[in-house]
Amino acid sequence: MNPVEMDFEKAGGLITAVVQDYQSGEVLQVSYMNPESFALTRQTGRMHYFSRTRNKLWMKGEQSGHFQEVVETLVDCDLDALVFKIRQIGGAACHTGYRSCFHRRLEAGGNLITIEKEKVFDPAQVYKA
Amino acid sequence: MNPVEMDFEKAGGLITAVVQDYQSGEVLQVSYMNPESFALTRQTGRMHYFSRTRNKLWMKGEQSGHFQEVVETLVDCDLDALVFKIRQIGGAACHTGYRSCFHRRLEAGGNLITIEKEKVFDPAQVYKA
Repeated sequence: MNPVEMDFEKAGGLITAVVQDYQSGEVLQVSYMNPESFALTRQTGRMHYFSRTRNKLWMKGEQSGHFQEVVETLVDCDLDALVFKIRQIGGAACHTGYRSCFHRRLEAGGNLITIEKEKVFDPAQVYKA
Repeated sequence: MNPVEMDFEKAGGLITAVVQDYQSGEVLQVSYMNPESFALTRQTGRMHYFSRTRNKLWMKGEQSGHFQEVVETLVDCDLDALVFKIRQIGGAACHTGYRSCFHRRLEAGGNLITIEKEKVFDPAQVYKA
């Protein structure tokens, strides 16, 4: 299924996945993949990750329904990072409800300014217990 | 200097830096930063990284002269990844001479196809012993 051999060893079993909106080019999310989540992403066309904090495989949208459909996959020069151009179902990638996880700008003085006007969804409605 | 406290602990002392062309939005590179390279990037306005393979701090362009000048810095929701929108001096970020490290597309069957037409520079000329 995957003739390409990604280098999972360099970073303790994980590769880095940069997620970019396939139309706007906006970086929506950076997450990590173990071999299983990479294989599932390839097989299903939906983004699967490995959570470093929860130590488990997950599919984006499994709780929220906000899946990410792969449009194009780019591989870096030393085979330990990927750019996935995706279609974001529901319009927001971040668990906070913002379109992008990168919704804050770091100013010269060190302050963080939120640059997105509003949240796409209310996390309290989407992630129910 | 840096009121923002990035979370360097989650991944063994490093945070992830996604480097994006400030005009085109193309992702050029993904690298990693320890606290010192992050601080130097903030202080100088030029991208500094920490090499996981060489285990050392480096400034992009220190050998090649192909510096990266920071235009804008975005921070992710959980403070362990950054997007740097940069101006790439010399026009190419990848040590192979291509504009982007992500110059190959992973096809459905698993083959890698080079999608950039030509190299911007010849590495043999740029990285001399």
